[in-house]
Amino acid sequence: MLYLLPFLMAVISFFLPPAEKKTDKNPNIILIYMDDLGYGDLSCYGALGYKTPALDRLASKGMRFTNFLSAQAVCSASRAALLTGCYPNRMGVSGAYFPNSKVGLSPDEVTIAELLKQKSYKTGAVGKWHLGDNPVFMPLNQGFDSYFGIPYSNDMWPVHYDGAPATNWKKSIPTLPLILNKDTFALLNTLKDQENLTKQYTERAISFIEKNKKSPFFLYLAHTMPHVPIAVSDRFKNYTGQGLFADLMSEIDWSVDTLVHSLDRLGLSKNTMIIFTSDNGPWLNYGNHAGSAGGFREGKGTTFEGGQRVPAIFYWPGVIPSGSISNHLTATIDIFPTLAELLNLNLPHVKIDGLSILPMLKGALKSPIRREFYYYYRKNALEAIRYDQWKLVFKHPGRTYTQHLPGNDGFPGTAPEDFPFPMALYNLNRDPSELYDVQEAYPEIMDKLNKLAERVRADLGDELTGVEGKGRRPIGSVN
Amino acid sequence: MLYLLPFLMAVISFFLPPAEKKTDKNPNIILIYMDDLGYGDLSCYGALGYKTPALDRLASKGMRFTNFLSAQAVCSASRAALLTGCYPNRMGVSGAYFPNSKVGLSPDEVTIAELLKQKSYKTGAVGKWHLGDNPVFMPLNQGFDSYFGIPYSNDMWPVHYDGAPATNWKKSIPTLPLILNKDTFALLNTLKDQENLTKQYTERAISFIEKNKKSPFFLYLAHTMPHVPIAVSDRFKNYTGQGLFADLMSEIDWSVDTLVHSLDRLGLSKNTMIIFTSDNGPWLNYGNHAGSAGGFREGKGTTFEGGQRVPAIFYWPGVIPSGSISNHLTATIDIFPTLAELLNLNLPHVKIDGLSILPMLKGALKSPIRREFYYYYRKNALEAIRYDQWKLVFKHPGRTYTQHLPGNDGFPGTAPEDFPFPMALYNLNRDPSELYDVQEAYPEIMDKLNKLAERVRADLGDELTGVEGKGRRPIGSVN
Repeated sequence: MLYLLPFLMAVISFFLPPAEKKTDKNPNIILIYMDDLGYGDLSCYGALGYKTPALDRLASKGMRFTNFLSAQAVCSASRAALLTGCYPNRMGVSGAYFPNSKVGLSPDEVTIAELLKQKSYKTGAVGKWHLGDNPVFMPLNQGFDSYFGIPYSNDMWPVHYDGAPATNWKKSIPTLPLILNKDTFALLNTLKDQENLTKQYTERAISFIEKNKKSPFFLYLAHTMPHVPIAVSDRFKNYTGQGLFADLMSEIDWSVDTLVHSLDRLGLSKNTMIIFTSDNGPWLNYGNHAGSAGGFREGKGTTFEGGQRVPAIFYWPGVIPSGSISNHLTATIDIFPTLAELLNLNLPHVKIDGLSILPMLKGALKSPIRREFYYYYRKNALEAIRYDQWKLVFKHPGRTYTQHLPGNDGFPGTAPEDFPFPMALYNLNRDPSELYDVQEAYPEIMDKLNKLAERVRADLGDELTGVEGKGRRPIGSVN
Repeated sequence: MLYLLPFLMAVISFFLPPAEKKTDKNPNIILIYMDDLGYGDLSCYGALGYKTPALDRLASKGMRFTNFLSAQAVCSASRAALLTGCYPNRMGVSGAYFPNSKVGLSPDEVTIAELLKQKSYKTGAVGKWHLGDNPVFMPLNQGFDSYFGIPYSNDMWPVHYDGAPATNWKKSIPTLPLILNKDTFALLNTLKDQENLTKQYTERAISFIEKNKKSPFFLYLAHTMPHVPIAVSDRFKNYTGQGLFADLMSEIDWSVDTLVHSLDRLGLSKNTMIIFTSDNGPWLNYGNHAGSAGGFREGKGTTFEGGQRVPAIFYWPGVIPSGSISNHLTATIDIFPTLAELLNLNLPHVKIDGLSILPMLKGALKSPIRREFYYYYRKNALEAIRYDQWKLVFKHPGRTYTQHLPGNDGFPGTAPEDFPFPMALYNLNRDPSELYDVQEAYPEIMDKLNKLAERVRADLGDELTGVEGKGRRPIGSVN
């Protein structure tokens, strides 16, 4: 009778619902990571003056998150966290690496790309890397089969805001290279050379998808924009009549639209999850060349919500409920364990801080998954801590944009870096803008959060209180 | 050949697309108007701590507005504007009417109910009225066939915040009546008597729909909640575990869900437009019993965006594009002329300030319809003016909630009413929270807005500059 088995299985599979069959195949994952895109920069998050219809459509057909945090409000730290599922200081990563950095994300850390290799995913990175520009830290040594992009931020070059050669400290920085796999593909000498980055990234992303359409693939598309200096391709110049930032957001939206259409064209839509989010809030100091925190306090480089609350859209037709809103506390570090659970992969043998939000994505959530979050900044300062709606901000010196006029047209304003923020307790459910310090009214909450902070400090350390911490993993180093 | 005409028309209509046929029948209109619901109080607008899935669904299947203003940030004025399509000061309406008011919305003004009577709509008002409690100003004298609700705000009664008899000026106010058509249906003596208001309104609304399911109808459902004192029915007590305001938002969401299901059950969904919005921003002074302005500055009773920017969802399956976002400047006064255009009705022979947004609702919009908005408060003070993204705030004394701790559990905090706000120019596209005064950087915009303000003052008057205005219509009066 055994010879009938293939036939019987075919008959059985014929009667299985098609959706079930589809999820048998490992889904493709596209992770779109923006640079300095603020919470308020998409129409579906309240942006005014331009529209992002493709991203709004993604949201209206997927799940839109309103309580989603980047792990740290600065480039390298936030990227290290995204790709590993850990608070960046657990791996010794902080700040934004400069060119010719001796340190970077340790190759011993398991990235999402390496995680997915357990199931033989084809992995491609396109865009800004910023986890160390020495080859040992670069994408091809961190689980990616291919790479196209710039190794760090697009303002790390010997060019001034207005395109003139830099006269300040920047003049010692090398010309910005565009890398293809391991080699320099082009040198970006002028602002004009940055104009096509969004378009080029998009084209490379689509080539990667087309090339790997038969394998499950992981595409990490980390746009350079809207980090300053902002620039658009010819087609989007004066596209909106509302200034360069609005034009740029239209080009970013075009990029997403083009990707989605490519998936449709290749018949991959039903088997691909798209995740869209940002590395931190807007660099408000750049005024009309910066995004908006959408009403949250402060922006990039701060532990106020404007620095870390970012847009997040998860889109997977047929799996993630259409038009749903998630307002549970979630973070970029949750993506790593979510993919691990989705694909039944082994987690690394080191501590992971993220929590799988798979039940949430499937719409079957009854209670919150994440209740705590630790807001670190500087080298290793625990500036704030969160438990449910409560956010306790510790006394710390920090960047402030308020009461200082931002710059214009690419020139920065003056945002003090050491404003003495006092300790304060905020109820983010009732006071999203962190205006009202209620520590006196809630002594029991203060007690709970202070105890939690002690536990966090003992684990991850805290330069504000001089606690060393333990269990910190060594940073990657070439020396 | 003429005798063949009916037959030919039947043949032609058979080949017309069904959508076209459906719009031949005048659609039902349901206008849900909340009291003190802030911009940030629905999940789809970023509310945390509770969910509003029915309203989120309405938004994801309809059009959600992010740049939508109530005409004035206080009860009576905003309602007069909503129902007539005019700035309230054009009709002499300002503030919030007290019990036994000698003045009210003039019966000579044409309300939406009277407008729709041109096409024999059945009209019902359920909920808070607040346009004068003398019978000459009440719903049955303003175009409504039926009425069930309270005549003014639910805190206008001789009861203190904690439910005890008032010891202050409130003790001279009569017991709060619940009115059925023209008669007192019940007296609301205690906080407990307010607990079933949301439920009762919902049941009355559904009865109205069932009774009029064969006629085109207009239902104006003006909830009493979440205006203080807030209260929920038994089913929603401790529903969320996140406090009374969260429980109340769940009951409001239930109410919307129940209405939508009733339309489905009666086969009316495809031919009914639902509009959901609010009269003004949150009364922040009430702390955990108030909503949230979602990051906008200040709240109810102010001309900052927190006072006037409100959620707005327009839902009409098959006509309004699903999952769309409108971020063009729009206002409650635009609803009146939109309905007039939709149904081809004659506008009143007096000036109407609203502009039809019908092309926007049909998704066929190329350019903004409304570019100006005038922010009035107090008796007749032009406190701010808007042109596109620019908002010029004039020097004025005003209410401020910031830096003053709000109250708790129904007790108010102390919000000064006369803070001396200076003149400031804000770019709302880049600075949604009105933080950065940029008047020095944009002299030409200042000039344009100041000229616009002169024109507005000459028309509607301005107590701040002592301009009388002209063409103001007389307020309704019983003496």
